Amino acid sequence: MRKVCVVIGSRANYSSIKSAMKAIKIHDDLTLQVVVGASALLDRYGAVVDLIENDGFQIDARLYMLIEGETPVTMAKSTGVGLMELPEIFERLKPDVVLTVGDRFETMATTLAAAYMNIPIAHSMGGEVSGTIDESIRHAVTKFAHIHFPASKDAATRIAKLGERLEDIYLVGCPRIDLVAEILATSMSFQGNIFQEGVGEELDLDKPFLMVSQHPVTTEYGTGEMQISETLSAINMIGLPSIVLWPNSDAGSEDIARGIRKFREKKICKSIHFFKNLPTNVYIQLLRKTACLVGNSSSGIREGAFIGTPVVNIGSRQHMRERGSNVIDVEHESVQIYAAIKQQVNRGPFDSDPIYGNGSAGIQMAEILSKCPIRLQKTICF
Amino acid sequence: MRKVCVVIGSRANYSSIKSAMKAIKIHDDLTLQVVVGASALLDRYGAVVDLIENDGFQIDARLYMLIEGETPVTMAKSTGVGLMELPEIFERLKPDVVLTVGDRFETMATTLAAAYMNIPIAHSMGGEVSGTIDESIRHAVTKFAHIHFPASKDAATRIAKLGERLEDIYLVGCPRIDLVAEILATSMSFQGNIFQEGVGEELDLDKPFLMVSQHPVTTEYGTGEMQISETLSAINMIGLPSIVLWPNSDAGSEDIARGIRKFREKKICKSIHFFKNLPTNVYIQLLRKTACLVGNSSSGIREGAFIGTPVVNIGSRQHMRERGSNVIDVEHESVQIYAAIKQQVNRGPFDSDPIYGNGSAGIQMAEILSKCPIRLQKTICF
Amino acid sequence: MRKVCVVIGSRANYSSIKSAMKAIKIHDDLTLQVVVGASALLDRYGAVVDLIENDGFQIDARLYMLIEGETPVTMAKSTGVGLMELPEIFERLKPDVVLTVGDRFETMATTLAAAYMNIPIAHSMGGEVSGTIDESIRHAVTKFAHIHFPASKDAATRIAKLGERLEDIYLVGCPRIDLVAEILATSMSFQGNIFQEGVGEELDLDKPFLMVSQHPVTTEYGTGEMQISETLSAINMIGLPSIVLWPNSDAGSEDIARGIRKFREKKICKSIHFFKNLPTNVYIQLLRKTACLVGNSSSGIREGAFIGTPVVNIGSRQHMRERGSNVIDVEHESVQIYAAIKQQVNRGPFDSDPIYGNGSAGIQMAEILSKCPIRLQKTICF
Amino acid sequence: MRKVCVVIGSRANYSSIKSAMKAIKIHDDLTLQVVVGASALLDRYGAVVDLIENDGFQIDARLYMLIEGETPVTMAKSTGVGLMELPEIFERLKPDVVLTVGDRFETMATTLAAAYMNIPIAHSMGGEVSGTIDESIRHAVTKFAHIHFPASKDAATRIAKLGERLEDIYLVGCPRIDLVAEILATSMSFQGNIFQEGVGEELDLDKPFLMVSQHPVTTEYGTGEMQISETLSAINMIGLPSIVLWPNSDAGSEDIARGIRKFREKKICKSIHFFKNLPTNVYIQLLRKTACLVGNSSSGIREGAFIGTPVVNIGSRQHMRERGSNVIDVEHESVQIYAAIKQQVNRGPFDSDPIYGNGSAGIQMAEILSKCPIRLQKTICF
Repeated sequence: MRKVCVVIGSRANYSSIKSAMKAIKIHDDLTLQVVVGASALLDRYGAVVDLIENDGFQIDARLYMLIEGETPVTMAKSTGVGLMELPEIFERLKPDVVLTVGDRFETMATTLAAAYMNIPIAHSMGGEVSGTIDESIRHAVTKFAHIHFPASKDAATRIAKLGERLEDIYLVGCPRIDLVAEILATSMSFQGNIFQEGVGEELDLDKPFLMVSQHPVTTEYGTGEMQISETLSAINMIGLPSIVLWPNSDAGSEDIARGIRKFREKKICKSIHFFKNLPTNVYIQLLRKTACLVGNSSSGIREGAFIGTPVVNIGSRQHMRERGSNVIDVEHESVQIYAAIKQQVNRGPFDSDPIYGNGSAGIQMAEILSKCPIRLQKTICF
Repeated sequence: MRKVCVVIGSRANYSSIKSAMKAIKIHDDLTLQVVVGASALLDRYGAVVDLIENDGFQIDARLYMLIEGETPVTMAKSTGVGLMELPEIFERLKPDVVLTVGDRFETMATTLAAAYMNIPIAHSMGGEVSGTIDESIRHAVTKFAHIHFPASKDAATRIAKLGERLEDIYLVGCPRIDLVAEILATSMSFQGNIFQEGVGEELDLDKPFLMVSQHPVTTEYGTGEMQISETLSAINMIGLPSIVLWPNSDAGSEDIARGIRKFREKKICKSIHFFKNLPTNVYIQLLRKTACLVGNSSSGIREGAFIGTPVVNIGSRQHMRERGSNVIDVEHESVQIYAAIKQQVNRGPFDSDPIYGNGSAGIQMAEILSKCPIRLQKTICF
Repeated sequence: MRKVCVVIGSRANYSSIKSAMKAIKIHDDLTLQVVVGASALLDRYGAVVDLIENDGFQIDARLYMLIEGETPVTMAKSTGVGLMELPEIFERLKPDVVLTVGDRFETMATTLAAAYMNIPIAHSMGGEVSGTIDESIRHAVTKFAHIHFPASKDAATRIAKLGERLEDIYLVGCPRIDLVAEILATSMSFQGNIFQEGVGEELDLDKPFLMVSQHPVTTEYGTGEMQISETLSAINMIGLPSIVLWPNSDAGSEDIARGIRKFREKKICKSIHFFKNLPTNVYIQLLRKTACLVGNSSSGIREGAFIGTPVVNIGSRQHMRERGSNVIDVEHESVQIYAAIKQQVNRGPFDSDPIYGNGSAGIQMAEILSKCPIRLQKTICF
Repeated sequence: MRKVCVVIGSRANYSSIKSAMKAIKIHDDLTLQVVVGASALLDRYGAVVDLIENDGFQIDARLYMLIEGETPVTMAKSTGVGLMELPEIFERLKPDVVLTVGDRFETMATTLAAAYMNIPIAHSMGGEVSGTIDESIRHAVTKFAHIHFPASKDAATRIAKLGERLEDIYLVGCPRIDLVAEILATSMSFQGNIFQEGVGEELDLDKPFLMVSQHPVTTEYGTGEMQISETLSAINMIGLPSIVLWPNSDAGSEDIARGIRKFREKKICKSIHFFKNLPTNVYIQLLRKTACLVGNSSSGIREGAFIGTPVVNIGSRQHMRERGSNVIDVEHESVQIYAAIKQQVNRGPFDSDPIYGNGSAGIQMAEILSKCPIRLQKTICF
């Protein structure tokens, strides 16, 4: 009976691991432990912790670890706070495996704490290339992890090239696609009026509309306001009704937020609705309906491939992430962005492309975790 | 004029970077910044900070970060403390490059703090293989570093294989060898009686003697006392006068210390002297004189190759580290250890082998740091 | 030449010490050191740090220390973060005296750090009674402080009763009154339209208007939303145009904020303007003009006494704080609040009452700090 | 059924609360929760945590919080680490009352964490006067505590004078005396040879011998080595066999330890035995047998009064602590110390004096905690 501890630090984290958590929870040979920390605890990021509990998971520890400020300094310090406290949480929970997701700073803290404490680490979504500090974190975590769950073939190959043993790499696909598949299977319409949340105009979702989801690029700290302004200017030129999402909490998010606020205050473009957060199922349905997703969110590339969403991906944040034909890449330049959106809107939706999995990642992960051999003492394969 | 900030966390750290610090300090186009933390500040580890000041370096910040306990929990927490405080130190010093050494937990804290703050990272002694958590840390740091200073050709190749750009990898040799070369060049005899420090018998250094330097293996936490007992039992069987060094502060050091204390209390073996720390120059001269170095210190493999010291290396700690013909590898088993020591003592000293450099690593590093191009935005090469 | 280090953690902190900072800065025998931390660094609380720099003060250290969450847990943790980092800041700045203000958690962290490091502590605004955890902090700080600067006679007496030596107690008045005096002396009208900041209706300030400033009571955590709702309901009944300020960052502020948001969304009461922060001079002028200040801010009692503002003080937060005849105290109950506001609006402004000083507190503090004897070793006087 | 959480940070802490813990554990209306942290977890201070478990207490949380260094900086930082982690421990354990002991830095961290979290605080051994930073901590804790358990009448009076309500003050005596009474009642001889622990000569305990227990005075940081040297010089002059105890872990302990080591290395005085720690029962029996206890330990004054031990108390550390006729006070000056020891040795043991209680403090505390009313909202009584 292996105890598998999942540490969730953000809404994105949770979406990326929820299907695995479900599968672990009901698996006969596994016990699920849940630690919730960082922005997942905070009202201002939509209190993901409540979602987790409402989904039927019991929370074993809560870890307030975000130092306010949203600067590079506070991001590093927050990792430090996490690293100071996770060891005693792990000491108490005594997990047999720690399952960590992706590439955020909570991931790094989780990984280091487990590594020092000789707890085997399973890592999902490793091996991907993205072109920010997230990429360095992701590969660094790979060098600590004992079990790898890459989401795509490309990523699996890269993990092997980083010197990991082939027998520790399990290509399971992306657990976020599990959620997408489930949502698309069960619901085809919105429940209630989604525009009661957020602020701004109410859109008619049966007519063409755009979506904007743009986050700070930590290595380009200080340029976020310019970046979002170029995007919003292109949106304005297109003139379609639009849904704009607020940025995540990485260093520089305040810049993007300021850009959005300034744009909103100008009130040039009437038909826009702003959301701080959207329930995943609403977001997925919007991805299926939108004429084009604009910005630098990974969801356009991953979920977008499966759903067939037309995407305009801007700037370096998703640099080199494996992508399907649904994505057009452009620079932070309003005219380029405008042209690409125009092209996507005219083209319409794409066919589904399973490069990020077929919807069974979570079930596969649980099964593997229940019986895979684990070699604690790692060494590089070359 | 680039500002290069060096973070030193232990005696070993300092020995590994001192020649580079000297070269940076006197370089016209560089300014040296020095942060001293962790065990380098503590009396109980020989107050390395005083040594650093006595060597003429000015200290820009002191960082008490070790949580007492010497368990896996405290090792992780200590990294967290470092990570909480380094960001504000870097914010104040505003270095252009952070130069970090090796593979200890301070190294990880330093690297993460710099990475989040978009400060370019130069890393010395990356790419080596050792078979403990140190190895994971070392490779993880490589995935964050922008400039690599491997100490051997083998290590340089491995860094490239990890997906780093060839133009960022500079094979300079090991800066510790710089110190060895300098010491061997300037002094051929001990100043004063070295046995006034430490406790135990006074040895006649003109007759054959053994040296023991054995540290905890963090992934084998709990077995340290057994490990050192096997070694000391072999030493006892050999019957030669011996110098025994106390372990470093990694998780498990208390186990080794207990083993040494128990052995000492038995007082079977009369001619033994115990040192907490030795000045580097004394240590190097002892390496030149000893009939055999026994244990799991990296110095036997690195400095030992250059000096020609006969070495018996025990257990997994130096697993896969590139080594010359001066090293015999054995398990933690007293009979094996005994036989290997016997063979080395009979054989005598080896010829110098330059696999870890020729004594100019520090000067090369300073020169490279003063003019190398730095690309802040990293991405993997495959 | 004594070095006096001031640690500022919030907007309120700054207003309470600014006149002393000015006087210290220009004093021949004193050097001013400034550490800015906690909410004073954050955009979301109006970036007080920029104000401080604009006022001509040089900042010696910045300390991000707030753990996000605004719960009792994060408030305690934030104090811990401050306490982890202030010692090394003090070690670097080597102040002769640390001057700390009032009763917030930054004050506690500052005081403990200085106390452990044997740095004499000067404390302003001690000895007051208020009836929340602030009061415990305030008296605890008194037990660590070496020099006391109470703001009122009542407070000075209480400090003496707590066992402090009479010769260490200097009744100087409240430094906030210094600012009030200065503002009232120099400007009698608003520069520009203050309603360009904040959201909501624009008020005609030449006609009667109310002001609301209500903060969470940490010992009544969980009741904040109810409390503000009662107040806003009374405001609504009165029907006068109103200015509503957002709460500070104490535990429970999210409850108050939610109450304000809900009220705002109902849009019953049209003529309301909401401010996150107001420049001090604008706030003071508003206090002079408002028909009544409603809520639980200390400013009504202190600045209000000097200015003659009619005040309705609600609930326990200012319990037992010395007050003048300008204040009516009521419970969190809308009908009571309504009646008291009615009475104050009808009565009109009061005469100035100097119970919190005459406007020279800062100058007195600097002079005393420059020459007072300091006895580091404290002991109680009974 | 009230849950009472005790936080233990040192050996002294444990001795001061053990009898209360026993009584709480067996009380029908109370549940005991135990948090062990700071030096109580560390091998180097005798692993008090093992003692606690051997005494039959279950440990609910372990908190490594000591930053190594034993300087004023690390003492403050350690308090910060404690304060960062205790809130989440309390959040998990949800105690109804936190019971905290005395005046150490763990006490401060415990108190602040509980205070911010609105958990009622019971404080034992408050109200005493001692003349170091401990005194400031002790009185500051009083200003946060809701239930006071002073150990002497004098202390109870002082707590009342500090503005606490009489109905919250319960004069129960000192729980350490409970242990003394128990030990003296049950055992009259040593089990085995106590000199198998520690280093140095074996003493004949049936002949006159001295005991030395001297700790650093934090406000006199830097003078510890001189202080202990004066004492040891006096001991040397007396010429009686002696037992010397190592200092506690307060800032400056390294100075005292160095003084002891230097003295030991001189080997002037042969009949001395050095102990790092002594089991409480051994220590108490030694207090009954010794010709004189020399140093600045509180045990001479408290336990000494009950037992009748002749004591020479040196320097400021116990300044103003209520004492019986068994204590002679002197300065850090070897001749004075010598004369006082001489006088005490000649005089012989004193009669028992119950100023610190009669041995029932723990039982009284449990009974009171089970039923006393608690008023969370404190305010000063004047």
